[in-house]
Amino acid sequence: MSVRVALFGAGVVGANVARLITDQSADLANRVGEPLELIGVAVRHVNKPRDGVPAALITDDPKSLLDQKPDVVVEVMGGIEPAKSLLLQAMSQGASVVTANKELLAKDGAQLHDAAAENEVDLYFEASVAGAIPLLRPLRESLVGDRIDRVMGIVNGSTNFILTKMDEGSASFDEAFEIAKGLGYIEADPSADIEGRDAAAKAVILAQLAFHSRVNLDNVEVEGITNVTSADVQAAKDMGFVIKLLAVAERKGDEGILVRVHPAMLPRSHPLASVRDSFNAVFVEAQAAGELMFYGRGAGGAPTASAVVGDLVAVARNKVAGRRGVGESIYAELPTLPADQAETRYLIRLQVADKPGVLSQIASVFAANDVSIQVVRQDGEGVDASLVVRTHKASQAKLAATVNALKGLDSVKSVRGVMRVEGEAGE
Amino acid sequence: MSVRVALFGAGVVGANVARLITDQSADLANRVGEPLELIGVAVRHVNKPRDGVPAALITDDPKSLLDQKPDVVVEVMGGIEPAKSLLLQAMSQGASVVTANKELLAKDGAQLHDAAAENEVDLYFEASVAGAIPLLRPLRESLVGDRIDRVMGIVNGSTNFILTKMDEGSASFDEAFEIAKGLGYIEADPSADIEGRDAAAKAVILAQLAFHSRVNLDNVEVEGITNVTSADVQAAKDMGFVIKLLAVAERKGDEGILVRVHPAMLPRSHPLASVRDSFNAVFVEAQAAGELMFYGRGAGGAPTASAVVGDLVAVARNKVAGRRGVGESIYAELPTLPADQAETRYLIRLQVADKPGVLSQIASVFAANDVSIQVVRQDGEGVDASLVVRTHKASQAKLAATVNALKGLDSVKSVRGVMRVEGEAGE
Repeated sequence: MSVRVALFGAGVVGANVARLITDQSADLANRVGEPLELIGVAVRHVNKPRDGVPAALITDDPKSLLDQKPDVVVEVMGGIEPAKSLLLQAMSQGASVVTANKELLAKDGAQLHDAAAENEVDLYFEASVAGAIPLLRPLRESLVGDRIDRVMGIVNGSTNFILTKMDEGSASFDEAFEIAKGLGYIEADPSADIEGRDAAAKAVILAQLAFHSRVNLDNVEVEGITNVTSADVQAAKDMGFVIKLLAVAERKGDEGILVRVHPAMLPRSHPLASVRDSFNAVFVEAQAAGELMFYGRGAGGAPTASAVVGDLVAVARNKVAGRRGVGESIYAELPTLPADQAETRYLIRLQVADKPGVLSQIASVFAANDVSIQVVRQDGEGVDASLVVRTHKASQAKLAATVNALKGLDSVKSVRGVMRVEGEAGE
Repeated sequence: MSVRVALFGAGVVGANVARLITDQSADLANRVGEPLELIGVAVRHVNKPRDGVPAALITDDPKSLLDQKPDVVVEVMGGIEPAKSLLLQAMSQGASVVTANKELLAKDGAQLHDAAAENEVDLYFEASVAGAIPLLRPLRESLVGDRIDRVMGIVNGSTNFILTKMDEGSASFDEAFEIAKGLGYIEADPSADIEGRDAAAKAVILAQLAFHSRVNLDNVEVEGITNVTSADVQAAKDMGFVIKLLAVAERKGDEGILVRVHPAMLPRSHPLASVRDSFNAVFVEAQAAGELMFYGRGAGGAPTASAVVGDLVAVARNKVAGRRGVGESIYAELPTLPADQAETRYLIRLQVADKPGVLSQIASVFAANDVSIQVVRQDGEGVDASLVVRTHKASQAKLAATVNALKGLDSVKSVRGVMRVEGEAGE
């Protein structure tokens, strides 16, 4: 007896998974209860040499592997199709699935979870968010009986690397981007990273797991880091803050959930503020457990493969025992609220005229738009006179109206920056 | 059918566990597959009122609960006896065990794990280290197939709170201790916390899990924070470091493991440096997964109860499925090496005579004792002349010999401080 595994995809992650299955076979058999047998590896180009993958196992026909009725399918090919059809077929045949495919899970997660439930198989996906960090399993298993209020994460390594370089060396976005590119941190098509779409897919997976609900992608707000300037970074630094691209999923009582991705300022004392370079971390606020953070490598072949193999062992153990793991549950069915209902603090930097009465004029604009001011700081003199305003929590709509009204004032020469503030206690 | 649970102990944690089992019964039944039935709660004083614990379930006779053959025993009474005898009896009767008892696990963990294996029951203990942080399960399950090189943690909340106050406000140890006491962060007998024994018990549990080996307590080094002065804290601060009480367990190749607890200086950019107040965190270095950190509340009734209930659900699910979870494995059987074999960097602060040739004299003492210097900084003049020396990695024995020799030099007026440095890249 053995647990028969088909592997779809043999890129950097897939090759590492194949190597781990082969190199650690005795240890894994010990953990699973029976040996794991790799029955085949489906790839697009059969002639490409692949370290650690036995040539005899390679095929460009994933369906032929499904015909051999594997017990578990590990999918690390990425993309929507053919991955989706293959996984649905695998589950309909009774195979459990381990996948790292965040794009597919964010778009068609509900359909995949339904298929897993219907066919009574496991669908595990630890590697889809924050690479090697054991995160989804704690959310799914350890926080049982607790209620999660909020999940806030740095889940994209490339953008965190760029923002770290901007923070460390006063580099511009373009300069930091080039440094990251030189080090191989940038994808061939960087747009999904820098425009926040990669982080948004992960935010959706986290939100579904944390709030036991399906997420409506149309209501997810996505803003990347392309508009973050070195002046923004410097201003944040001067005030003891650091700018991070955050994926935030929060519960608004029993009304619904809010999911958004955007740059935000965090106090330097916040645990997420020390997450530097290409590291990832997810900060969780739960009612009983309190504040938790999970930190580690978000990407890379070996770390991601480590997470895939952790899932493979769990799924294979379940197969051997003839049972399923804890499935995805969508029993709460909270709606995804439009992201503009989210309330956050803001920091607004203004270039202002240096004359009496400016402050009261500006303060009255905030008051008229129902945005409460927390702190105002006035810097410089003459043409360099500037004002920094930090607000209490306000909706995006009210903030936008305030900024518009400020632009119409004679005493405001320009709005230099508007950014959300997260991670502060109180309110 | 139901899973019958006996609870031993109804202090702050136990009462919260009882409340969660009652309040979340529908959700927990959903997760477990069958309802959880609390058959009784054993306490020392039956007449003490206990919120959330039904009076009819309370008894002062834990053996009478064992006579009712529970499926799972949850032990949150603490201490070695009677906890140990009760848990051994429970397992011999076929009950699985969930415990938060770090003292017992550190002292007699091997015996308990053997009993669990022999009786084919589960022994789960997530709450014994770092309270609510899901940590032991990832080490045990998610990092399967990976090899851990090092675990370094802040695992005692009281001492971290004291050190945070010393760092923030230049308070002395005594002042910070009083602040902590006023806020209820100090135990009636604070010695186990401030002398590092509490952290040492947790280090032992972490080391056993990370390295699949039994730990020999005699070879664990334990130093608390009572000798940390505000001058040490200030000197660390001036150099961009922060002092933390660290529990370190590391693997020295295939030779063995080293376990130690002591104050150390960490660079402020290290993820553990931002773990403030009474928070806990554990930093893990694994070969495939890379660097990971788990952060959260280390103590408190609700967070700890959350971890206990997470374990209870896992153990109860296993009971329903008629199987065991992944057990503790001690297959590696690496010896615990004497702690003085550990090599770390050191920072030494000296008050020196302000005259030519002092530096070369001091440098030659380091060289004679085979301790390599990384950086030297000279500050002040006249009677205040001081020298700060940072070393490369050196053994405790060599460092002690160096410090002794320094004390014998005419040009060294006093050795102001000697502290280990952890968390720096390279060497």
